[in-house]
Amino acid sequence: MKITAMSAHDVRFPTSRLLDGSDAMHRSPDYSAAYVILSTEDDGVSGHGLTFTNGRGTEVCVAALRAFEPLVVGRALDDITGDMRGFWRSLVSDDQLRWLGPEKGVMHLAAAAVVNAVWDLWAKSVGLPLWQLLSQLPPEDVVAAIDFRYIEDALSPDEALDLLGAASSVKEQRARQILAEGYPAYTTSAGWLGYDDDKVAALVEQAVVDGFRHIKMKVGGDLDSDVRRAALIRSVLGSNGVLMMDANQVWGVQEAIAAMRVLREFDPWWIEEPTSPDDVLGHARIREAVAPIRVATGEHVQNRIVFKQLFQAGAIDVCQIDACRVGGVNEVLAIILMAAKFGIPVCPHAGGVGLCEYVQHLAVFDFVAVTGTVENRMVEWVDHLHEHFRDPAVVERGRYRVPTAPGYSIEMLPSSLEAYAFPDGPMWAAPEVLVG
Amino acid sequence: MKITAMSAHDVRFPTSRLLDGSDAMHRSPDYSAAYVILSTEDDGVSGHGLTFTNGRGTEVCVAALRAFEPLVVGRALDDITGDMRGFWRSLVSDDQLRWLGPEKGVMHLAAAAVVNAVWDLWAKSVGLPLWQLLSQLPPEDVVAAIDFRYIEDALSPDEALDLLGAASSVKEQRARQILAEGYPAYTTSAGWLGYDDDKVAALVEQAVVDGFRHIKMKVGGDLDSDVRRAALIRSVLGSNGVLMMDANQVWGVQEAIAAMRVLREFDPWWIEEPTSPDDVLGHARIREAVAPIRVATGEHVQNRIVFKQLFQAGAIDVCQIDACRVGGVNEVLAIILMAAKFGIPVCPHAGGVGLCEYVQHLAVFDFVAVTGTVENRMVEWVDHLHEHFRDPAVVERGRYRVPTAPGYSIEMLPSSLEAYAFPDGPMWAAPEVLVG
Repeated sequence: MKITAMSAHDVRFPTSRLLDGSDAMHRSPDYSAAYVILSTEDDGVSGHGLTFTNGRGTEVCVAALRAFEPLVVGRALDDITGDMRGFWRSLVSDDQLRWLGPEKGVMHLAAAAVVNAVWDLWAKSVGLPLWQLLSQLPPEDVVAAIDFRYIEDALSPDEALDLLGAASSVKEQRARQILAEGYPAYTTSAGWLGYDDDKVAALVEQAVVDGFRHIKMKVGGDLDSDVRRAALIRSVLGSNGVLMMDANQVWGVQEAIAAMRVLREFDPWWIEEPTSPDDVLGHARIREAVAPIRVATGEHVQNRIVFKQLFQAGAIDVCQIDACRVGGVNEVLAIILMAAKFGIPVCPHAGGVGLCEYVQHLAVFDFVAVTGTVENRMVEWVDHLHEHFRDPAVVERGRYRVPTAPGYSIEMLPSSLEAYAFPDGPMWAAPEVLVG
Repeated sequence: MKITAMSAHDVRFPTSRLLDGSDAMHRSPDYSAAYVILSTEDDGVSGHGLTFTNGRGTEVCVAALRAFEPLVVGRALDDITGDMRGFWRSLVSDDQLRWLGPEKGVMHLAAAAVVNAVWDLWAKSVGLPLWQLLSQLPPEDVVAAIDFRYIEDALSPDEALDLLGAASSVKEQRARQILAEGYPAYTTSAGWLGYDDDKVAALVEQAVVDGFRHIKMKVGGDLDSDVRRAALIRSVLGSNGVLMMDANQVWGVQEAIAAMRVLREFDPWWIEEPTSPDDVLGHARIREAVAPIRVATGEHVQNRIVFKQLFQAGAIDVCQIDACRVGGVNEVLAIILMAAKFGIPVCPHAGGVGLCEYVQHLAVFDFVAVTGTVENRMVEWVDHLHEHFRDPAVVERGRYRVPTAPGYSIEMLPSSLEAYAFPDGPMWAAPEVLVG
């Protein structure tokens, strides 16, 4: 099956109008996606992928998608899947494009969309949800998808094989278990920084009613307001609930330590993104200073090389992979295996648009084929924008229902791609007609 | 003076036709630039900036330039220069664009072009070369241009003030000295990986005749070939010459250590980019293993936060700032001052197109206003593409002549912008007419 064409789309949702998704760093995001469709000779089968963005600048990612087009279109799916490592490197290490990263920022975001579209296509072509395709692959084939360049000092191909091989005999049983039980979720829907106190209190109450024990709030605005909101949420949640805090990178190292000395009063389980995602040594220092509060990061960690160092330096307690910040499935596999070797639980970043749909597959693969446990593990859940997907993620009683439709669950409805196309779709060209 | 318009240009030079600039990672680069012109109410004064690229993907940087346009056009130069830190942060931390970095990759490359264009405009408006504008600014104004977010644990504003204040009384004398003597240079023109042995030998001979004692060669192809070429260059250069090696990131940590155990026979002064620029801890391990060979990196180090950690971890001996990899002059100032605090010499990365023109200003500022020494310090020199600039960099007898024309020396000739415009300029649309 040959990939015959690629289309790239700029899709934006006007979430800033209600301050959904607002935090200390991103005060009015319009959740968006640079979206790619790989068409094939078979009209019925296409591969879909997206990279999540925040509104302005999505067009830059679309330009990056177009730069990858000649590296994908014209290739046979079998050729690609027969050398997934080579395919991945052909994108992230093209000898001219590489200068623009390497392996970070816009180019890496766009590479992720393309790589994920290929995996979506592969999974659909064999009629399996992505997690199941990954779980059923022989360990050798999983390892053959990973580029070990720059991480061999932390994880060798042989070690990766051993980690995967250890689960071989129990994979089927684990798959049945997680299909029956679902994967644990936590919610961020309640605690956006732009919401007023009454809305936050009502949402926390509703979350508890909906079966969530774990709730994440945004911090890092001003400290007095963080304290007020933390007291409010903790009072509604009760002392049995688990409260996580997320500073979205607004602090320096010392600021983070000082702020958490105050906020520890509310018994946070973790502090997420206390400082720059680039600051491995800073995270290590913060972790030492704020223990036993756990340190989490990952949604902005650019690639496996920085994750490697976060593990090597003992800088984090929680690894929050993102499905399209690093270079798609191939690189996520490397990170999940490194996390397993270093004993760090993976709690994927989601929210955004499409991220819940994506990462549920990664968490289920981690359970089935790698770690076999959900202890200290859960996937973020934000309850919006799911209606735009053909196979939306579903959370019930605080757990993700394991997806069963073929593919990576990331295919958007054609009507949504059209309505929210930027700048010419009706939601942007004539929004007053469509919203109140 | 108000900035009234911004134009963005995709300019590419077909250097791959002769393998100029070829190394182990970039086998056939077309040296290129995403180029920006800021027009003002005053027809005679415009600000120019570029970010260096490698051919394909330059159009992605141009799209990023356009994304910054609304943050620059319409602003008064005085407003910007009165709050340089605020201006810089408005670009790199725009609350929607930030997601695409943050502070790395395409967006940061493009931000550098815009930021540098503003400094070029400022320098021209006061009739000074950039290095002189920077050197004459009161320490408080230099510090006010720096965003200390994420680096205060390594360098506080007060420490920066002290470093700059210490030089106040000697700046004028140092400026006279460097104007008279020029700034030391080394050459990379001889050792590109794609050149055959005869060409390399002839170029090294010529470089010595031209007054260079320091020569850099590319390594990291296959080790046998590296050994053959190193022996050749060392034999022509003689034991008094200084030979540097540059692996352009092709090795992992253990590979780098193993390769340098072999190549140490040729007495390299430094090994540059032995591994991924993202791998702070890896550089630290390599440095420990290959001492006394020095470890150098920087041309791909994405921002001040990674440089901070390279210093904190004792990972490098040589800091190779790039003028448009990090976010332009403002961020370079932060890095030069951190390097001074940690006692690490700055040897800027150049070559490319426009990079020699840019970084000569930074090295001269470092000498005049910060360190006052050229010991272990020199600026890279590659002798090509200078003819496209209005005020090209000039190297004589192994030293950069200090620039005296107003601005940042980065203004390209209108005829070059036209001829090499991609894809519609005559050099690309009909190259057979123009080259043999």
